[in-house]
Amino acid sequence: MVYFPEVEESVVFDGPRSHNQLAFKHYEAERRIGDRTMAEHLRFAVCFWHTFKGTGSDPFGAPTLVRPWDRASDPMRRAMDTMDAAFEFFVKLGTPFWCFHDRDIAPEGESFTDSCERLSRMVTYAKRKQDDTGVRLLWGTANLFSHPRYQNGAATCPDPHVFAYAAGQVKHALEATHELKGSGYVFWGGREGYETLLNTDMQRERDQLARFLWMAVEHAESIGFEGQLYIEPKPNEPTKHQYDSDAASCLNFLREYGLMGHLKLNLETNHATLAGHSMPHELRVARNAGALGSIDANVGDELLGWDTDQFLTDPRLATLIMLEVLAMGGFTTGGLNFDAKVRRSSHETVDLFHGHIGSMDAFARGLVAAHAIRQDGRLDALLEERYAAWNGDLGKRILAGGASLADCAAFVSRSGEPVRKSGRQELLESILAEFV
Amino acid sequence: MVYFPEVEESVVFDGPRSHNQLAFKHYEAERRIGDRTMAEHLRFAVCFWHTFKGTGSDPFGAPTLVRPWDRASDPMRRAMDTMDAAFEFFVKLGTPFWCFHDRDIAPEGESFTDSCERLSRMVTYAKRKQDDTGVRLLWGTANLFSHPRYQNGAATCPDPHVFAYAAGQVKHALEATHELKGSGYVFWGGREGYETLLNTDMQRERDQLARFLWMAVEHAESIGFEGQLYIEPKPNEPTKHQYDSDAASCLNFLREYGLMGHLKLNLETNHATLAGHSMPHELRVARNAGALGSIDANVGDELLGWDTDQFLTDPRLATLIMLEVLAMGGFTTGGLNFDAKVRRSSHETVDLFHGHIGSMDAFARGLVAAHAIRQDGRLDALLEERYAAWNGDLGKRILAGGASLADCAAFVSRSGEPVRKSGRQELLESILAEFV
Amino acid sequence: MVYFPEVEESVVFDGPRSHNQLAFKHYEAERRIGDRTMAEHLRFAVCFWHTFKGTGSDPFGAPTLVRPWDRASDPMRRAMDTMDAAFEFFVKLGTPFWCFHDRDIAPEGESFTDSCERLSRMVTYAKRKQDDTGVRLLWGTANLFSHPRYQNGAATCPDPHVFAYAAGQVKHALEATHELKGSGYVFWGGREGYETLLNTDMQRERDQLARFLWMAVEHAESIGFEGQLYIEPKPNEPTKHQYDSDAASCLNFLREYGLMGHLKLNLETNHATLAGHSMPHELRVARNAGALGSIDANVGDELLGWDTDQFLTDPRLATLIMLEVLAMGGFTTGGLNFDAKVRRSSHETVDLFHGHIGSMDAFARGLVAAHAIRQDGRLDALLEERYAAWNGDLGKRILAGGASLADCAAFVSRSGEPVRKSGRQELLESILAEFV
Amino acid sequence: MVYFPEVEESVVFDGPRSHNQLAFKHYEAERRIGDRTMAEHLRFAVCFWHTFKGTGSDPFGAPTLVRPWDRASDPMRRAMDTMDAAFEFFVKLGTPFWCFHDRDIAPEGESFTDSCERLSRMVTYAKRKQDDTGVRLLWGTANLFSHPRYQNGAATCPDPHVFAYAAGQVKHALEATHELKGSGYVFWGGREGYETLLNTDMQRERDQLARFLWMAVEHAESIGFEGQLYIEPKPNEPTKHQYDSDAASCLNFLREYGLMGHLKLNLETNHATLAGHSMPHELRVARNAGALGSIDANVGDELLGWDTDQFLTDPRLATLIMLEVLAMGGFTTGGLNFDAKVRRSSHETVDLFHGHIGSMDAFARGLVAAHAIRQDGRLDALLEERYAAWNGDLGKRILAGGASLADCAAFVSRSGEPVRKSGRQELLESILAEFV
Repeated sequence: MVYFPEVEESVVFDGPRSHNQLAFKHYEAERRIGDRTMAEHLRFAVCFWHTFKGTGSDPFGAPTLVRPWDRASDPMRRAMDTMDAAFEFFVKLGTPFWCFHDRDIAPEGESFTDSCERLSRMVTYAKRKQDDTGVRLLWGTANLFSHPRYQNGAATCPDPHVFAYAAGQVKHALEATHELKGSGYVFWGGREGYETLLNTDMQRERDQLARFLWMAVEHAESIGFEGQLYIEPKPNEPTKHQYDSDAASCLNFLREYGLMGHLKLNLETNHATLAGHSMPHELRVARNAGALGSIDANVGDELLGWDTDQFLTDPRLATLIMLEVLAMGGFTTGGLNFDAKVRRSSHETVDLFHGHIGSMDAFARGLVAAHAIRQDGRLDALLEERYAAWNGDLGKRILAGGASLADCAAFVSRSGEPVRKSGRQELLESILAEFV
Repeated sequence: MVYFPEVEESVVFDGPRSHNQLAFKHYEAERRIGDRTMAEHLRFAVCFWHTFKGTGSDPFGAPTLVRPWDRASDPMRRAMDTMDAAFEFFVKLGTPFWCFHDRDIAPEGESFTDSCERLSRMVTYAKRKQDDTGVRLLWGTANLFSHPRYQNGAATCPDPHVFAYAAGQVKHALEATHELKGSGYVFWGGREGYETLLNTDMQRERDQLARFLWMAVEHAESIGFEGQLYIEPKPNEPTKHQYDSDAASCLNFLREYGLMGHLKLNLETNHATLAGHSMPHELRVARNAGALGSIDANVGDELLGWDTDQFLTDPRLATLIMLEVLAMGGFTTGGLNFDAKVRRSSHETVDLFHGHIGSMDAFARGLVAAHAIRQDGRLDALLEERYAAWNGDLGKRILAGGASLADCAAFVSRSGEPVRKSGRQELLESILAEFV
Repeated sequence: MVYFPEVEESVVFDGPRSHNQLAFKHYEAERRIGDRTMAEHLRFAVCFWHTFKGTGSDPFGAPTLVRPWDRASDPMRRAMDTMDAAFEFFVKLGTPFWCFHDRDIAPEGESFTDSCERLSRMVTYAKRKQDDTGVRLLWGTANLFSHPRYQNGAATCPDPHVFAYAAGQVKHALEATHELKGSGYVFWGGREGYETLLNTDMQRERDQLARFLWMAVEHAESIGFEGQLYIEPKPNEPTKHQYDSDAASCLNFLREYGLMGHLKLNLETNHATLAGHSMPHELRVARNAGALGSIDANVGDELLGWDTDQFLTDPRLATLIMLEVLAMGGFTTGGLNFDAKVRRSSHETVDLFHGHIGSMDAFARGLVAAHAIRQDGRLDALLEERYAAWNGDLGKRILAGGASLADCAAFVSRSGEPVRKSGRQELLESILAEFV
Repeated sequence: MVYFPEVEESVVFDGPRSHNQLAFKHYEAERRIGDRTMAEHLRFAVCFWHTFKGTGSDPFGAPTLVRPWDRASDPMRRAMDTMDAAFEFFVKLGTPFWCFHDRDIAPEGESFTDSCERLSRMVTYAKRKQDDTGVRLLWGTANLFSHPRYQNGAATCPDPHVFAYAAGQVKHALEATHELKGSGYVFWGGREGYETLLNTDMQRERDQLARFLWMAVEHAESIGFEGQLYIEPKPNEPTKHQYDSDAASCLNFLREYGLMGHLKLNLETNHATLAGHSMPHELRVARNAGALGSIDANVGDELLGWDTDQFLTDPRLATLIMLEVLAMGGFTTGGLNFDAKVRRSSHETVDLFHGHIGSMDAFARGLVAAHAIRQDGRLDALLEERYAAWNGDLGKRILAGGASLADCAAFVSRSGEPVRKSGRQELLESILAEFV
């Protein structure tokens, strides 16, 4: 069956002047930008949950997205139809990667064992699809937040039975990811936090979470999974507070529990803004710590306080994101996963193409602009010049640990007042605007 | 000269039914709550900056607070008059502690040396005042954010000359604090952050900041200062982003640079809410890490996005704060410093009494309520019971590192679905309300 | 069948020292406060949707609230069981009122006609329940936001067919409310707004909305419904922007379309804070315009950006709310409707009691405190005194329109600089704290 | 004296590829876009306050902007030097308009009369400058918020003496604006609001404000001033709440007091976001009401909660703004006033050029894009099509008032369920991106 008749074979590049709404205007997979192709730089992935399992429901409304792949009465038949639709979409869109949760691809069964068997069957099914199409898995994960059993948390639940359930689920999701040759595996702790401090022993719960991650690290090793493990920060929603609230709090957690070498961060734009940070800030924090792994490419509405998970179409923000990616030397295991969903009233399948195409074009523009900014060199030169005095005698001595407060006081007594320098923010923004 | 004629001798306790606006209704310094007096529990401090140097200016308005101690034409005379007024206020209010910045008590001079001399003279003056009154210093600090030289940061400035200036200032402020037998010394990095990532090398600046703090740690040791060093989180304002943005990011920083044993946190309610956290959350994060040091006791307006630094008068919030303080066994070096200012239109000296008295009463109520909650034991018992299953076999094994993902999967295959338990938030809030 | 075995007969008043978790500690229905009983002042209503139809689902989680009244396979049987449970709860809790949406009490049918018939049957059923118990209807409303047909708005939909559907639904919901002798009828425009301005003709949509309301006004008259019509502000969620965003924007809308005499406002605490206002602010705005009708009594988390609809348990906020209610002379048609839901993990029926009891107690305390503040008179006297100068010659002349800018300039030239007066915010907050 | 040596004669257009940091890359004053030149469309104004009187101080820092025109010891000499600098800047930058507050151009004197005389002298001085250069006045205003006398409000002060002072100031500021042939006059109520409801009689204060505006309307008429009067919304800062909080609340106020025909709105981007709205939303609200007058062109940081007043450099936002301006047929009396300030650390005069040039270029791009979008017609066509059904029989009848709820119910009973249409947000954003 054809689920996406609106695109016959594939979305093609048709240039920036095209009015073809189902063609790329900027994204040319094989165009070289520096030492890689666009496809190699951007490593786009389509997410299974929003794109194929999203229903359009919201806290005040019933599902609006009624999909042709979701019609069969048998749940496993629906799962296979959905997988068929997904790979049809990946191929037509031309994205090299996909991402999934265990319960996206295989429905919860009657029992844990039953659920595991279903997952196993769907992994086999997906593997064949991957082999047939060449589409690869960017990362997998387990859904430890939707089922009522997780209402008080998964790894951080006050009940170890729930912890064990989550651990069992991760075991199988990790193995599924390994089987599908995923480049990574993500932990997003949707319920790992608290609703009220009145009923919460925070440190105990964080200890549990650390233990959970260590068990995953050990299991990954034991099965020979060489993909990267990631944690994904988000400050709240669904909970009042999630322990992995932003990049800095994740790093604090990883350091506290000796996990720094074992996990990197999967950063999402909308989560950054919910935490009160810009996405470039979060990327910088992670990159500086050597912990920038992968990106959930979406955008929120900065005037709304929940996760709207919209498709990013602003080339300026895409440029700032790609500047950080290029600054770390490009992705290795990670990529740009579209953790984005069509609006609730965009209920036709063609809207899925509009969303992805528009955002792939935006990131292509961002990549081109970021590369050009680096080639141009003016921004880098201004930055270098700004800190140049630290290469002088005083600066070197301080950083090397060779100057005390008393030495500094003596220096200032001798040298007097420093000369102020303009930070030049207005100029820098104008230079940025030249490229966007 | 008498600066505060509205209170003849001292603010006295007059009981909860009193209509005397200049009497305490709840705060009785010598009343015992558990094993300490109220005064010993709360360790109130008045801040020098807002209370005696505050002008009432705001981004759209000129100073409104014209103080009688600020009239002399000679700046050092004004400084001494201000110190006189301060100690008159401390004594009349009955607070055991005070706090200051170097530039609050001694005006900036013509040169660094001149400034240091002025500070030295004022420290001598303050020391005599302390001896005369028995009022002690909770903590001191250096103002590294007001002067234009710090427009691009102090320790994190792109110019090492500015770093050196700040280091020199800290040397003298630390020594002043030591001389005045301060129990602590605070680092709040008002300009230690960035305005735009376009001109910022974040990691380099954080390295500088860490070096700066290490130099301070070493200097404190070298002069025999045994007070506690603190850093104080705030996410932004005046800068776009400050590196010490919340408790978790501070802990991450301290861990990254090996400073965990050397600094604790000084937490402020208004800073917590600007960071998107509740104050109890920040206290809990710090307490769990063994890093809860001291508190800047104020409150912001959760609907406004800047530091309004208002006096806390809500007994419910005071109770939640005191619960965390009691849970760590009470303050050791720290205390409740009123980093709060009268509103711009509360321009009379009597308003300073209204602000402090109202807030001291609120914290006294909070202390009494928090103590009663702990004596009552119901909240603690409910918490204990909630996590009780972790004392069972499975729980212990997991936490001890004796269970793998596979063990958990096997357990769940055998044991099936866990039984859900209510989190009881509604009940817990009602129990809390019994005490407030 | 007994749905709420945890309370045998009814929740009784047991005094503030009681440890009985299922007794009132402050709410005594028949206690007189001023000229009315507590019950007459507070006019509590239980909402049908959250309390009996709430599922505990959230954007990341499946339903957790599995109710015994929701088990029957036949939807109309379930509807009747739910109605039975509801009236059992009303009676046991002792609330005099309830509120509903059409689709809460009667499930959507196969066709519009079918839905209307179901509603009609359930109204008959509810009426008998009302007669049996003496519980009355505070207000009714129509759910014009959950069904997919309303994905682009109801009255503001770009398709008049959808408008007509919504209009038809309101016709029947109004008639149902009339049949049940409701004191009011509410319009909350959950989808009356936009997702993006790019696809929105805002003025056209607002014209549609005004026409819709006028049609309702006319229909209410034509059927002899004498209850009060209300609109309910909320800035966003589920939409990006709702036209009735706060009290002021509602008033603007009512004035623009000549509807001021016909509708009042139904204000909700959580909606106020989402709009960036305090609830007392919104109440004041509406009260000043003679448009304060009824209250959705709940509270949000000011640090979260969505409608958490929690039970209000803070006596301070309850006092500020009741001050506004008393200042308008108390409710006439309106009341305090608990538009609040138990947390997702509070999945037991007893949690419904905890939530309502805790909040009824909080409002009882708020009522007592607000009444005492008014009896005490100090706050009012300070307010009177603050504006007293407007009773002088200059003030009267200005307000009467008898002074021009030139007259004022002449006055100031003669009289010079005004004398500043303290706003006394710190004192006023302390006086407030005496009562809370 | 030459104050801006960095630009010898004037900033010239040098094309989008230019690396000249002091040339326009997009703004060509005389380039025709549709029926007007760029200059005629954009009507740029430089504001006197930030650009020439801004000090760089912030709540935590002293002034950093030490200007060469601010050196003379005599305040009137400084005022004249500042005016010289301003007109040198206007001419070199090539902006056709400027804006001022009374106290920007003439310092407060010893008495009201003295202040008025100073203002009068500076108006004469400015007028000659205008005549010499051809630069015109977009609008004038009075500063009724900086002086301590306004600490409790100006028109809304509890003291009529203060009201009279403000009224006197407005008289002279209006006359100054008239004398300088200003196209408009703005009322921004920086202190017209409250700090706490506990000391505020809101309705009384709003009545005072309305009376104040009516007095200004009458005075404007009496002196023959034909410029447009505007009010400017802002939700808070410096106050807790300002009565003119957003466009809708302003319209509500104007309608309530019969002022709709007399004042239009002056909208500011940063104020819109502080109110929780996008700038396009506020423009649309005002435009729909026929009340869109003028624009304060700046931008805030959506992650910060105060008025950062930054230069807008994002072409996407500029496009959305210009779409609204073109949709109302372009400016008449209004224009784009740069109510923006250089960052505190951008302390050199050249930074003033960088800020203005970058933002003028951004708006030039926005104008070109908005014009192209309108020429292209696809967005308009999609919008037209979306609402097309309202041109059918049912739609027309409803809007004409010829259909009742009962008619609608009958229609739906006959016609059944409407067909849903996609809102196409993803597509529309992609089309927008083609032009930006």
